[in-house]
Amino acid sequence: MNNDTICALATANGIGAIGIIRVSGERSFKIVDKVFQGKNLEKVKSHSVHYGFIKDENEVIDEVMVSVFHSPKTFTTENSVEISFHGSPHIAKKILEVLIKNGARMAKAGEFTMRAFMNGRIDLSQAESIADLIASENEASRKVALNQLKGGISNEISNLRGDLLNFTSLVELELDFAEEDVEFADRSALNKLLNKIEDKLSSLIDSFQYGNAIKNGVDVAIIGKPNAGKSTLLNALLKEERAIVSDIAGTTRDTIEEILHIKGTAFRFIDTAGIRETTDKIEAIGVQKAKEKISTAKILLYLYDEFDSEPHEVIDFVKTFWREDLKIILLHNKIDLSGGYFENDFDKKVKAELFPKFTNSIIGVSAKEGTSVEAIKNELVEYIEDIKTSENTVITNQRHYESLQKSLESVKRVKSAISQSFHTELLAYELRYALEHLGEISGEFTNDEVLGNIFSKFCIGK
Amino acid sequence: MNNDTICALATANGIGAIGIIRVSGERSFKIVDKVFQGKNLEKVKSHSVHYGFIKDENEVIDEVMVSVFHSPKTFTTENSVEISFHGSPHIAKKILEVLIKNGARMAKAGEFTMRAFMNGRIDLSQAESIADLIASENEASRKVALNQLKGGISNEISNLRGDLLNFTSLVELELDFAEEDVEFADRSALNKLLNKIEDKLSSLIDSFQYGNAIKNGVDVAIIGKPNAGKSTLLNALLKEERAIVSDIAGTTRDTIEEILHIKGTAFRFIDTAGIRETTDKIEAIGVQKAKEKISTAKILLYLYDEFDSEPHEVIDFVKTFWREDLKIILLHNKIDLSGGYFENDFDKKVKAELFPKFTNSIIGVSAKEGTSVEAIKNELVEYIEDIKTSENTVITNQRHYESLQKSLESVKRVKSAISQSFHTELLAYELRYALEHLGEISGEFTNDEVLGNIFSKFCIGK
Repeated sequence: MNNDTICALATANGIGAIGIIRVSGERSFKIVDKVFQGKNLEKVKSHSVHYGFIKDENEVIDEVMVSVFHSPKTFTTENSVEISFHGSPHIAKKILEVLIKNGARMAKAGEFTMRAFMNGRIDLSQAESIADLIASENEASRKVALNQLKGGISNEISNLRGDLLNFTSLVELELDFAEEDVEFADRSALNKLLNKIEDKLSSLIDSFQYGNAIKNGVDVAIIGKPNAGKSTLLNALLKEERAIVSDIAGTTRDTIEEILHIKGTAFRFIDTAGIRETTDKIEAIGVQKAKEKISTAKILLYLYDEFDSEPHEVIDFVKTFWREDLKIILLHNKIDLSGGYFENDFDKKVKAELFPKFTNSIIGVSAKEGTSVEAIKNELVEYIEDIKTSENTVITNQRHYESLQKSLESVKRVKSAISQSFHTELLAYELRYALEHLGEISGEFTNDEVLGNIFSKFCIGK
Repeated sequence: MNNDTICALATANGIGAIGIIRVSGERSFKIVDKVFQGKNLEKVKSHSVHYGFIKDENEVIDEVMVSVFHSPKTFTTENSVEISFHGSPHIAKKILEVLIKNGARMAKAGEFTMRAFMNGRIDLSQAESIADLIASENEASRKVALNQLKGGISNEISNLRGDLLNFTSLVELELDFAEEDVEFADRSALNKLLNKIEDKLSSLIDSFQYGNAIKNGVDVAIIGKPNAGKSTLLNALLKEERAIVSDIAGTTRDTIEEILHIKGTAFRFIDTAGIRETTDKIEAIGVQKAKEKISTAKILLYLYDEFDSEPHEVIDFVKTFWREDLKIILLHNKIDLSGGYFENDFDKKVKAELFPKFTNSIIGVSAKEGTSVEAIKNELVEYIEDIKTSENTVITNQRHYESLQKSLESVKRVKSAISQSFHTELLAYELRYALEHLGEISGEFTNDEVLGNIFSKFCIGK
């Protein structure tokens, strides 16, 4: 364990009424006392706040309020101090300098949270949820992060893991009595538990699609020939959103312009420029390029009209681009020119070939007149509803997702070891392997590289 | 007095590990208790910190730490609460919403500080110093603001004002005995006091030039004919600065590029484009335009060389542009072409006409080779040294400066009333007038308009 006392600015960088510098480590009180003119912090109660001045030798740096937190009831479980100063970045710098001069050192990214984890106050998934919570930009992601901070995923798994650990001990006990061919661990009960674990893991894994959508948004590709009305449609979709956006001071138009928020989910329209030229003549290179472009998309809006396309073009396109996890929505555009949408021969041919396997959505639209914008939005929302999970806990973290997949894999191997009546030694080995993977999410099994990776992505001061 | 309970984000806007929302007003504890799941805040000790959750009905918004401050030992003197949450702007918004739903209202800009002033905890100049402290970007401005927060200017004036108040009472007493022609207030002692006040006021007024320089920086105009080497010189001056700047992550190059920091003072090079065309043929309109451009400059760097100018041009230019509060530095450029700087006939003529009234600085430079950059910087620093004051308290605030000038004016009128043996009634009137002006800085005499003006410039949450 690291015994350094660390310090960092904990509030957002910039000018504010108040800024907070956090100090954590065994020597926190001693160090702050050296620079704090006010009460002797080593002698005050935990969770108390004190008025005074931060000084560098004889020079006052700022008038501050200092909060004292005694180990172990603190964020890091270590002695901690929070210094609340007049929120100028210049003053923050001066205070950090004087703390460092007196024995503290600058915290690394995520080091406070890492200490909370290393000292056993929170598990690894909770530590990760803190970063998610800070970065949460909408209600859905805030709720998921908060649920995880309260132990969501760890709770889901730890009981099952506990039960599996009991079985594993029994199986390992059998090894000690190998000569006697006893069976302490009831194989059918073990199998039942493994099925239960398998179900839970599968269900959590399935929630990742939804979790990922609420955390990172959903990429939507709009594709069509030149003049199919792509930008007109985009403008019609974003019209209302843009009006809302311009009301929020400080929102950068540039970065948000092509994002549409519907019911708390961000739909991000990806740039498919360069595909259009190749869609009317689908040849190998063009298709490959286009597929790459829309490889991250979960939804494809394909825009065509009967004046400029043939049914077979639409059919070919969809069949070429279709993949299991891509929702394709066909938009029959320019209905204003035909006086409304009628299901004519064109679309009948398309439906006959494509419904229901490749798609079952055709919407008649007039991008120009903004017709059917609501219908398109409903299709987008329906995508979210379809992937929504009944799980209380939603997986949003790539690392958790991968750990769950590895766990599922290892549980399946244990089951197969049982069904094939493998040697007890091998079964015990597979069980240990499964336990290890199940322990990865909460950080019971981990290594420095993984930890370094996780915490380096945190901001300084957290 | 306003009885509303107000709330606002107190930390800088943006993502940070921690954000702080501040609540102030009689009902602070009652309101926060409604949304805080944890201890009953009405029953806990002042200056204590408590763990819990902010909830909206049954939904948890965030895990928080709440600090409780009982009236009157708080920033505003009112009951106050500080809520420390996971620093996402989205969470800040949610917490503010739920506080407002439960009876608080959003604070106006500067309203916390205004309450601290209205409730008598700090005087007006101290309130202003808080905004200055938060905005301080360098050591000099931090020190001046902190000195003022500790009561600097108020202390300087309040004793003198107290003494003057005593005299005023005595003079007013004389009015009650008008028939009897008594003199309770010793006129010569009063005169002595007025001289003392006058000296102090003059000295404080003089400090404004320095105060303004350290707070707002010093504008420096670089002027010269086309190809005189203006941009080359600017680049040479900023070279080192730029290297430093690029090391600081997040610094916007655009805004800092033409600012040079030397010993804690910001020298801002103002754009004199458009002047150059008129300098070789000084005609009325051109001069007027140029004068306007350099009207905010305190220092003028005039760049010429003997290949492209005549001495009389330099002389004419300086005489035309000279003003009392402008330091003119002549830069004899392109000395690399003459193999170094020699005081030749050209500069002898210039000196004969201009020294010492208009300027006494000629520096031989080669902008191209960066020669004499240090000498120029020394001249800039010397400007600051020259205006530096022996006063402990430095005036940096335009309002204070104006109040001090009005005070000085009124003191002079009192003195003149005494010397001309004006009627006691008139003397009393002038004394009251002077007291009022002297009380303006600390806010003892003020009005809503002035206050509105001052506090509206604060950030929300302060």
